[in-house]
Order: sequence, then C-alpha cells, then structure tokens
Amino acid sequence: MTATKVRILGIGMGPSQVTAEVAEALRTCDYVIAAAKSDDDPLLSVRRAVAEDHGVPVLAVPDPERDRSDSGDYVTAVRDWHEARVDAYEKVLRARGGTAAFLVWGDPSLYDSTIRVVEQLADRMPLEYDVLPGISAPQLLAARHRMVLHPVGVPVHITTARRLHDDIAAGQRNVCVMLGGSPDLSGLGDWSIWWGANLGDASEELVAGRVADVAEEIDRAKSRAKQKVGWAMDVYLLRAP
Amino acid sequence: MTATKVRILGIGMGPSQVTAEVAEALRTCDYVIAAAKSDDDPLLSVRRAVAEDHGVPVLAVPDPERDRSDSGDYVTAVRDWHEARVDAYEKVLRARGGTAAFLVWGDPSLYDSTIRVVEQLADRMPLEYDVLPGISAPQLLAARHRMVLHPVGVPVHITTARRLHDDIAAGQRNVCVMLGGSPDLSGLGDWSIWWGANLGDASEELVAGRVADVAEEIDRAKSRAKQKVGWAMDVYLLRAP
Repeated sequence: MTATKVRILGIGMGPSQVTAEVAEALRTCDYVIAAAKSDDDPLLSVRRAVAEDHGVPVLAVPDPERDRSDSGDYVTAVRDWHEARVDAYEKVLRARGGTAAFLVWGDPSLYDSTIRVVEQLADRMPLEYDVLPGISAPQLLAARHRMVLHPVGVPVHITTARRLHDDIAAGQRNVCVMLGGSPDLSGLGDWSIWWGANLGDASEELVAGRVADVAEEIDRAKSRAKQKVGWAMDVYLLRAP
Repeated sequence: MTATKVRILGIGMGPSQVTAEVAEALRTCDYVIAAAKSDDDPLLSVRRAVAEDHGVPVLAVPDPERDRSDSGDYVTAVRDWHEARVDAYEKVLRARGGTAAFLVWGDPSLYDSTIRVVEQLADRMPLEYDVLPGISAPQLLAARHRMVLHPVGVPVHITTARRLHDDIAAGQRNVCVMLGGSPDLSGLGDWSIWWGANLGDASEELVAGRVADVAEEIDRAKSRAKQKVGWAMDVYLLRAP
C-alpha cells in the first residue's frame, strides 16, 4: 500500500495567481480537502475554482461548530474546535488515502494554520507531506500600490492588528499589518498608509495617503467591499513620517 | 501613437514559480529588457528561460561598468552607475516603444530596485507601468522547511544581514534575513536557524538546527552551492530560544 500523501499548496490571492509548480502538483492529487464553513463560504468558492481549473474534485469537510457560548473558557473552546477539525480531516484521509491537497489562500508561511494541522495529522497516522508557496496578501498590496514594502535597506515588520501598537511602541516605523480586523490607527495621523481590502477579488479596494486624511475613505471603502460580497479582509502598510 | 508601457513582473525563484497572471501578462509584451552583467550571468539565464517559455524575445542591455577604483567616493560611484543603467534602459524604450517587461527574480516588493528604476524612467518619458507579484525567497525557504515564518500570533521581521545585529539588539526574536552576504551569527549560538541557498535552483542547499550545531554545516553547504554553479545566494530565518 502506498502511503497517504498531503500536498500543502499556496494558491495566492485567487486562481490567476496559481504558480506553474502548484498547477503541476494539483495534477498529482486525487482530491482537494477544503473546510466548509457554509455553502457560500468565499474561500471555499476560491478553492473550488482552482480545483476545477485543474480537474481535481473537492471534498468539502464541514467545519465543526465552535462553542461560542459564554460557558467554558475561550482557549478551551478554540482548542476543542481545532481538535474536532483535525479529527474530521483524519477521518477523510484514512477513508480515502491517496494524495490529497490542502489549498491555502495566500501563502502557507504567513498567519495560516494548515502546516500545523498537517503536522498533527502526521503524528496520528503515516503521512508524507510537502509545501509549495503562493503569493501572499502583503505582496499583492505592494504590487497594486506599485511600491517596495520598505525604504532602501530598511526592514519590514509583518505583524497582526492586535500587536500593532505594541510593535510601534517598541520602535517599529515600517509595519505591514495582516489579520486586520478594524484597524485602530489612533495616534498615527501623520503616518502614511497603503491599504487594501479583498485583494485579487472583483470587490478589491485600495486607498493610500496620510492616515489622518484617508481614515474615513478607508472606512467607506471597507463598507463598500463588505456590501458587495459580504466580507472584507484588509491588509495595510504603515510608515512613520 | 500608443504610449510605451512597462510591466514589472515577479517571476519567483525560477520558471516553475511563474503565476498564471504573469504568464498571461508576458503574452502582452513585445520584449523583455534584462540587464546583462556578463554572458553567464545566472539571473540573465533564468530570465531567458522564462521569456522563452512564453515566446517573448529578450533584449539584453549590458550593465554599465561600475567604477570600483579607490578614487572618488563609493556613494557617487554607485549613483553614477545607477544613472548609467537608467540611461541605457531609456535608450531602449525610446527606440523600441511598445510593451516591455522587466522580469524580477523573486518579488518586486522585497529588496529589489526595479520599481525605483521604472519610476525614474517614468519621470523622463511618457510611460505607463504596472506590477505583478512573484514568490519571494523567504516564502520558498519556509515551504522547503515546511514551516510558518513566525510562531502563532508573533511578528516576522524581514531585514538585511547588515542590519541583523542592530535589529536583534532592539529586541527582535524572529528575524528573516535577506541579502545574506556571509552570515555573522556570533552571539546567536542558542538560536534556531532555518537556512537555504540558491533556492529553486538545482544547486539548492538547506540546513536547519541550533546555530552553534549547524554553523559549519552551513559554511560547507554554501561552498558546495558556489562550487556547483559559481554563485551562492542565501536567506535564513533566526528564532530566539
């Protein structure tokens, strides 16, 4: 019996950003495993489009319900939910075997849990796996604004919205923020921002300027994206004056 | 007369990482402009391979000689060399017009000067331009080591070898280093390193471990890559214990 194999494939910000090597890898896969939050899950649609482009069937695995009640603590709830998810994937892999693909929106190396999930699966069952990169949101943001992510010779600090103000307090002056949530730009009025939402989608929005000048424009653009497709995921670069 | 157009296209770490949208963009280009340091310039070979794959002719523009004499100062020499380079591209674009592509190894948003060069060209002549992203070295490094570039919820700080020790002194504990040069890992014996050279090339080398344990192995791997193909470009992730 051949070992079950998993390929973790970065698909960039949509079907047009799939690389030649990911397209070739997809042709070696028997099926794509995709978490399905709901029938109109936008990321499921992107995964379906990519899989269809390359003639691979999609196995949608219903995402376990997360306990959002106030009883019990948050950390336990997230851990249980995560466990239930790994359980569901394990069941599919044991039943189907062969070569399965996980399609990662953006790149598996930035703020994505797929590699960790597959590591856990590999602890539970014999599993070979590899990873191929995809275009990430900060890269598409930079391309759309036709800019480099840092001034000459200076670092770029990639962080989350939750950490932004701590990182700035610690001296960072050129910061790219992923997992935006609602950007809290208080105290940064003089900074420059290059902002984007739903990059790569038809609902894409871009705004750039001095934070104090464009903060409201960003709010409006984000609402516009959300109104169009029901979701708005943003990423932005902030640079000190 | 139609305006001259430039497309800045990220090609990733080699022909297999070209995205679908870059392949499509290449089909709209009349020619590729590529700086040629020498006839066996490895980056010129990669560009030629990509252009050939998509049926676009390559216009190799000899890179101007850089004044490396001790007379005159370094900054002036680099600036003159940079100017001469922009002059050479301008001459080609004025003579040929149409749509030209610059193929950027990796991604145009990280430690690459192509966007700046094209901005200068656009100041000198009527020019439209756009940018498409490509897979960058840190992403391929992470994929090869099957890892995420940061622990859960923690930032990743992307910097240059020259700045590494300043950034660590300022408190960074998860640092990705590009433009390696010879990595100076003094004082970091207890840190973990995930290292790669010539990623995406047949001469690719990978090493991972505790810095003190693998420093010599990295030296040997780097020499091996250099011996094989005449060059060694490395990228690495360092993480505090």
